[in-house]
Amino acid sequence: MQIATPYLMFLGDVPDRLAAKTAYGIADWRPEWCVGQMRLPGCAADLGIPDLTLEEARVEGCRTLVIGVVNAGGVLPEHWIAEVVAALEAGFDVASGLHVRLGAVPAIAEAAEKHGRQLHDVRHTTETFPTGKGTKRRGRRLLTVGTDCSVGKKYTVLALERGMRERGLDADFCATGQTGVFISGRGVAIDAVVADFISGAVEWISPDAAPNHWDLIEGQGSLYHPSFAGVSLGLLHGAQADAFVVCHEPTRSTMRGVEHSLPTIGQVIDLTVQLGQLTNPNIRPTGIAVNTQALDEDAARSVLEKLSAEYGLPATDPVRFGVDSLVDRLVAEFPAP
Amino acid sequence: MQIATPYLMFLGDVPDRLAAKTAYGIADWRPEWCVGQMRLPGCAADLGIPDLTLEEARVEGCRTLVIGVVNAGGVLPEHWIAEVVAALEAGFDVASGLHVRLGAVPAIAEAAEKHGRQLHDVRHTTETFPTGKGTKRRGRRLLTVGTDCSVGKKYTVLALERGMRERGLDADFCATGQTGVFISGRGVAIDAVVADFISGAVEWISPDAAPNHWDLIEGQGSLYHPSFAGVSLGLLHGAQADAFVVCHEPTRSTMRGVEHSLPTIGQVIDLTVQLGQLTNPNIRPTGIAVNTQALDEDAARSVLEKLSAEYGLPATDPVRFGVDSLVDRLVAEFPAP
Repeated sequence: MQIATPYLMFLGDVPDRLAAKTAYGIADWRPEWCVGQMRLPGCAADLGIPDLTLEEARVEGCRTLVIGVVNAGGVLPEHWIAEVVAALEAGFDVASGLHVRLGAVPAIAEAAEKHGRQLHDVRHTTETFPTGKGTKRRGRRLLTVGTDCSVGKKYTVLALERGMRERGLDADFCATGQTGVFISGRGVAIDAVVADFISGAVEWISPDAAPNHWDLIEGQGSLYHPSFAGVSLGLLHGAQADAFVVCHEPTRSTMRGVEHSLPTIGQVIDLTVQLGQLTNPNIRPTGIAVNTQALDEDAARSVLEKLSAEYGLPATDPVRFGVDSLVDRLVAEFPAP
Repeated sequence: MQIATPYLMFLGDVPDRLAAKTAYGIADWRPEWCVGQMRLPGCAADLGIPDLTLEEARVEGCRTLVIGVVNAGGVLPEHWIAEVVAALEAGFDVASGLHVRLGAVPAIAEAAEKHGRQLHDVRHTTETFPTGKGTKRRGRRLLTVGTDCSVGKKYTVLALERGMRERGLDADFCATGQTGVFISGRGVAIDAVVADFISGAVEWISPDAAPNHWDLIEGQGSLYHPSFAGVSLGLLHGAQADAFVVCHEPTRSTMRGVEHSLPTIGQVIDLTVQLGQLTNPNIRPTGIAVNTQALDEDAARSVLEKLSAEYGLPATDPVRFGVDSLVDRLVAEFPAP
């Protein structure tokens, strides 16, 4: 999936900021692609970028209308359909993160066909993948893993991409979730791939590369999460990670959506190494990324110091304190070949 | 998915027995449902059951035409389409194990609609599943796991179902693969489920049950297979197995389709217990099932004795030597509550 940039961000009339989480993620990490936003009366979200009409957005060079919002049930509300059709008529492609396929709405399918525009359903993939082979590929790979879902795995690889590029390193973010696909303009939402092809899809996302190139692969779920561990394991095997960073949220008591308690960071390190060795015998942890949003700065620094000492790894909150320590360790452990 | 029985087995004009593997599996395990077969000129497969016309099959009570064969590329050959349409017109449902959806062939979709018949694509599922919860369910569950793919996981649970029922135990085969779905008349092909819902689909296949009821869940892949370990792990977590039987083929040197060598039975036992404890802390191995087809009888018995002594578990070839020893152990370890 390759989405044409830049984007006109469609926010509809979502009732709160959370419903536009994907759009905020895109605007945070690819501000240069988010030229304007389009909002309907009653919209409670605001990306802080210019409100543009379709005509104005065309003049500004926008190529894709991005529906980076969710609606109850993942459906496309009736009154959004006319807006999507108008965008197709005005020459935009349309990309959506909703569960419903854009092409399943007859008026949208017809307008796309008639005007020769692309429809991208980021939660779905039409690509067919081979099954994973497990054969070592060239180039270097870092994967983020977690003690739970939604602990900052995407933000950590994005921050690493930025930090590594600032040092002149050759590093690419590899998206495996829908927000990530919008942010990179390509990738596959791994959780939407048919089960037999999880590791094959990851091998496809991160193919053979130059010896000094880093693919920074967005992790999903947790090996300890009873709902999603299968996805996490297929992702680990397909990634053949040389290095991994463990992501953690220190104030949670149970894992998201289930009654299970969180594993420790040490358990995640041990199991990731144990299982990851199947496709990369040299896999090793290179850092810890903690989402300290719920802590004040002193408490955050204290948690990070404690974890760093306990595991002998750099520990940081990538959003709050940057990723310098993570990049330092990576460069030290993997010198240029 | 619930397929109406009995079946008229459609073999088309497949060039060899292997292309009709699914049909043979159904005929082996559900001979009472396989009332007749329908073959086109040049067919090289023969289930050894009467060749029936559609009219004769109707008189015999058949309700579903089963396409239990594969064709190059998984497609439906042009000259089979007329046969499928004729079956729908004659009042049969049609169930297929091909990759292509029956409904994607316009003539078939129209005939099904017109005559009000069901089309079942066993490799696909239209059911939406919740994500797995990992909450312990009532009843007992046995899962077959493997050192590799295609080592007898399905045959072992089917043989166990037969053997346990002969002793008056309450046991049901739970299908997770396409042949299994035909054999049980229900179930889900787990490898075709979207990745996020693997464990959820297994929870759905094997819901809460009576305390003394055994669900015998067909395993898939191997935790050590780099292509499919994610599926195997989601299946293990969803199954919440109380007991598991390790399936093995003793003459293989590398895992199917990849360059990796096979794990030992001991490695599979250890990793299954370690990872399975997430959703069932009491998971334990209760036997070893070996596919000894490639060995003569003396060699087979010698392998089984050696494995049984090494692991302290009953070891048998379910097809060659029956499952008595496996059932004995199960009854001893899990007395009636």
